[in-house]
Parts: sequence; structure tokens; C-alpha cells
Amino acid sequence: MSRTHRIVIGVMGADDAPRDVLALAERAGKRIAHHRAVLLTGGRGGVMRAAAKGAATNGGMVIGVMPGRDAEESPPNDHVHIALFTGLGEGRNYVNACSCDAMVALPGSWGTLSEIAFGMKLGRPVVVVGDGGPTGVPSAATPEEAVDQAYRTVRGTPVPD
Amino acid sequence: MSRTHRIVIGVMGADDAPRDVLALAERAGKRIAHHRAVLLTGGRGGVMRAAAKGAATNGGMVIGVMPGRDAEESPPNDHVHIALFTGLGEGRNYVNACSCDAMVALPGSWGTLSEIAFGMKLGRPVVVVGDGGPTGVPSAATPEEAVDQAYRTVRGTPVPD
Amino acid sequence: MSRTHRIVIGVMGADDAPRDVLALAERAGKRIAHHRAVLLTGGRGGVMRAAAKGAATNGGMVIGVMPGRDAEESPPNDHVHIALFTGLGEGRNYVNACSCDAMVALPGSWGTLSEIAFGMKLGRPVVVVGDGGPTGVPSAATPEEAVDQAYRTVRGTPVPD
Amino acid sequence: MSRTHRIVIGVMGADDAPRDVLALAERAGKRIAHHRAVLLTGGRGGVMRAAAKGAATNGGMVIGVMPGRDAEESPPNDHVHIALFTGLGEGRNYVNACSCDAMVALPGSWGTLSEIAFGMKLGRPVVVVGDGGPTGVPSAATPEEAVDQAYRTVRGTPVPD
Repeated sequence: MSRTHRIVIGVMGADDAPRDVLALAERAGKRIAHHRAVLLTGGRGGVMRAAAKGAATNGGMVIGVMPGRDAEESPPNDHVHIALFTGLGEGRNYVNACSCDAMVALPGSWGTLSEIAFGMKLGRPVVVVGDGGPTGVPSAATPEEAVDQAYRTVRGTPVPD
Repeated sequence: MSRTHRIVIGVMGADDAPRDVLALAERAGKRIAHHRAVLLTGGRGGVMRAAAKGAATNGGMVIGVMPGRDAEESPPNDHVHIALFTGLGEGRNYVNACSCDAMVALPGSWGTLSEIAFGMKLGRPVVVVGDGGPTGVPSAATPEEAVDQAYRTVRGTPVPD
Repeated sequence: MSRTHRIVIGVMGADDAPRDVLALAERAGKRIAHHRAVLLTGGRGGVMRAAAKGAATNGGMVIGVMPGRDAEESPPNDHVHIALFTGLGEGRNYVNACSCDAMVALPGSWGTLSEIAFGMKLGRPVVVVGDGGPTGVPSAATPEEAVDQAYRTVRGTPVPD
Repeated sequence: MSRTHRIVIGVMGADDAPRDVLALAERAGKRIAHHRAVLLTGGRGGVMRAAAKGAATNGGMVIGVMPGRDAEESPPNDHVHIALFTGLGEGRNYVNACSCDAMVALPGSWGTLSEIAFGMKLGRPVVVVGDGGPTGVPSAATPEEAVDQAYRTVRGTPVPD
């Protein structure tokens, strides 16, 4: 990886999630900004918006990989800096998994499960926050630990305090 | 659905599966041929080949939706009648889920999990053979029951004996 | 290519085409059925429907590779035997190009131009009917000649009278 | 478009291009940086690298939308800041067209033609540098004019000197 390339960490989760999950997502986004990594999400609402808010309001950069072919079909949430429209519908979940160097997931929907499965298939470091992920996927108790674990695996070095 | 259109039932499973799972897949393929439905698989080896064999040797038609862009990149197994090359890599798992009217899954790999997740997300009838599927996905004890259940849901009518 | 695999020839053209172009497409479909090859089209109206009609009413088999994720989003035309829903929107044009062993094109729309370009990029034999194709793409004066030329290139043998 | 979202302008062209075309691409990238828009390219060599160099060395941000699923399969050029791996092979050309708000093209390859065709199909503003584009696509004499014309169409306002 050249000096130019920035590390991209995905946060995956549902459009429709309960408030406590949104709070976890926002903390994950904030932690990603702390590491100066780029946050990649699906660019919609719910977990995607909360993570984006956490990153963007802490100086981080946010990429939204959108299902639709333009902003009319898929309006990006208001914390996305760069919206990339794929025109692939839910097929963009595969692009999400390919596009992130590591993935933090807040499970709870079929879409997120497809992203976790692709991440594992592709050999990406995947860390689930909490214990709701499928058997065999690493997990962490807090979003900060999940991000640190993901980041550390990509960087190959311990994360300083 | 016009009279011309044929029902497409997918059988999803790993390239690398133990012998007893392959036997289940072959029975699923045979049962799909029995219903005169078209079998759709990922066109590779393991479960995909076993299901194709079960269908093709019982008069059924087999579609293989391949990851590569041509036969050199993704050689279809020898029971595939029509190989459709997607050039999408593992992203073809999404096309698999979209392309079948109902899905029978033999779980056990991350790729198959991505297909189950997409099937559920898309509202396709998904039936797992055995009890290895994710929570919330219908299952059946035998491949014949799984196929019948999938077929019945698409047709909206009971399957005759 | 094993004995099982069937040759797939695509006919590409616009949803919205003048009557004389539709007549050419129908003749191309008929000629593909004559060669006992499978016709692949985008499954919609216009050229796609005319080619499908030409093949289906002459005993040929017709695959429709649809942009939407189900029949509600993309109703296949009434001559399609097997509808494969990609859920990729216009991105299915790439799958079309990958999925056919050779391509016959009736140019006239941007979508068709994308398919011709992908076909050439992928090294597929592409034959345009008439002289409306981009520079550098082989053409033929009639749809029968175009299909024969495409078929011959795939089979590697001259087409008998 | 919210205040957060940044304008994305694509520069499309071949991996393998003559030196004078590379010089045009670099000037296009520089002009995009001048407008503080984000440059999107296919992330490989040739035109993609030259445009990236032009943007990156003038303070611009560069996104590379890669065909492969990781850096091993598709090494991004050394001026790409954020590499997004699609895993879609040449199918990523469709994502390129969807993902840019406007497109500047240096024609000369089948891949670029597929991107121009998709851009036109999707209703994106497309401007070809020089007169090598397909009939019906707007062109400009210089890369600066092409970028300005693209940018102006997206912004809906004249570009100041």
C-alpha cells in the first residue's frame, strides 16, 4: 500500500435499527475518525447514518456506497461526503465488502448478514459488535474495541492508547 | 407469470462439501427435475455439481450462473446445460438469489450464507435442508421436503404426491 | 466445452425500435433457433421481444437476462422461457455480454452500444446488422448472415447451407 | 444535494494510451482539482493514472473504482487516495458511470466506450475531449473546456474565470 492510500473501514448495519444500536454505530464512526481512517457505509439511514454522523462530526471522511444509480433513487444521508452510486441495488453489499479493508458490523438484518458473509468469504477482517453475529465471526464487546481490532489487523500493528 | 415462463429453483451450497451433503444436493436436484422446474446453481463443483447431476440425469434442465467472465475463468461443471457467465466474481451470489423463484440451501460456507441472506432480504422463499441455517430461515428435514416446500410457495398450490 | 453445454447467442437492441429493425431482430431469433443455439436477450420489449418471438415460435429456447430483481420490477416479455433476474439495473448489460458466446447487435441506443463495447472488450465475436455500429466492429448485411457469422466463429466451423 | 456532498467528476480513458492523450488526461485532473471537485477514475494506469496525477499533485482528492476485489488483484495507481474495490471486473465500468456526477472521456478503447455509453444512458453530462467520441456525445477542444463544461452542467451555474 503506497503512502497515498488511506485505510477504509466499513461499518455495516441496518437502515432500521433500535436506538441503542444507533448509539453503538455512532461510537464506531467516531473511533474510525480517531484513527484517521475513511469510513465506508451503505450511505442510507439507521446504522449507516449514525456511523457517518460519528465520523463526520469528529473530522473523519465518509464514503457512502449507494444502491441506486443516482441521488434521486438513493438519497445519501447528510453526513456522507462522497456518495458513490453503484446502480446495483442490494448487490452493492458485495461492493461494500470488497471496498473496505476491514469491517465492523452491527448485526440484525439480512442485508448486514450478506455483508458479513461476503467479508468472511473475501478474507477481510470482520468484527461484530456484541454477540449477535453468526458463529465463527470475531466479536468485540464495544464499538471502540471492534474498530481497534479491525484497524490493528489491517495495519498489522498494535493500536496505541 | 405467462404460460411460457418456467419456474426456477436454486440449490445453493459450497464448492467443497462432505459426501453426505453432496448426496442431499443430488436428491434436491432430482426432485426439482421431478417438478419440471429449472435448476439454477452457481455452476461450479461440490454441491453445485451434485445438484446439477441429480437434475440433469433425471431429465431436468440446469442453468449455471458462473462467477467468471468465460469458461476459461470459470469452467462450468459437466451437468450444466446453459452456462451464464456474469463476470461479477462472488457478486454473482446476488444474481443467484435474484434469479431463482425459490431457493433450497445446504449451508456450510460463507458464500452460501450470503445467498441465504440475499434470498431472505429479497423475500424469496428460502428453505434450508437440515438445521444448519441461520435463525429465522425455514428448514426441512429432507431435500425432497425442502424442494416441495419451495415449489409449493412459488406455485401457491399443494404439491401432489 | 462439454457435450452438455449449449451455445448461447445474444441479440442486443433497444426497447424502443422502429418496425423495420424489429423485423430484422425477429429474423435473427429465428436463425438462432435454426442453429439450435440458445437465444439470450435483455428480456424486455422492442428488439428483445422481437428476437425472442423469432426464436420461440421456431422451436428455440429463450433466456431473458433482466435488469430488475423480480418480475414485478422487470416483467419479461411473453416469449422468454427462462427469466434470470439480476437486480443490477443497466449493469446487467455487462452480464449480457459475458453470458453470450457470440453477440448479434442491432445498434441504435446507448444501452446497446454499452453491450457492443463490452462484447468487444471481452473478446466475444460481435456482429452488427447493417452499418450503424461503431468503427471496428464486424457487420453483416442481413440478420441471417450476422447469426451465421457469429455461430461460425464460436463453433470454429463453416455453417452448412 | 446537501452542503456536505462533494461533486464527483469522472475521467475515463484507457489503461494503454499514447503520450499526448496522457498529457490531456493530466490537464483534466488538474482542472478538476481547481474546481475542488473529487476525481473519480478506474484507478489503473494510462489515462487513469495521468488524470489522478494531475488532480493529486494539485491538491485534489482522487477516488479509484477498481475492477478487482483487493489490491492484489487490482493494484491502484500511486495517486489514488481512496481505492474502492468492486470485485466486478469490467462490470465496474457501470459503477464508474453511476458514481460520477459528470464524466470527461478520452476515447480510444472499448472499455471507455462502454463508460461513455452508460453515462449517456444514465443521463449524466458526458464531454469527450477531441473529436474521437461516438456521434451524439458533446465534445470540447481542450480538457479544461471539457471539465468546465461538465462542472457547469452539474452546478447549474457558469464557471468563473
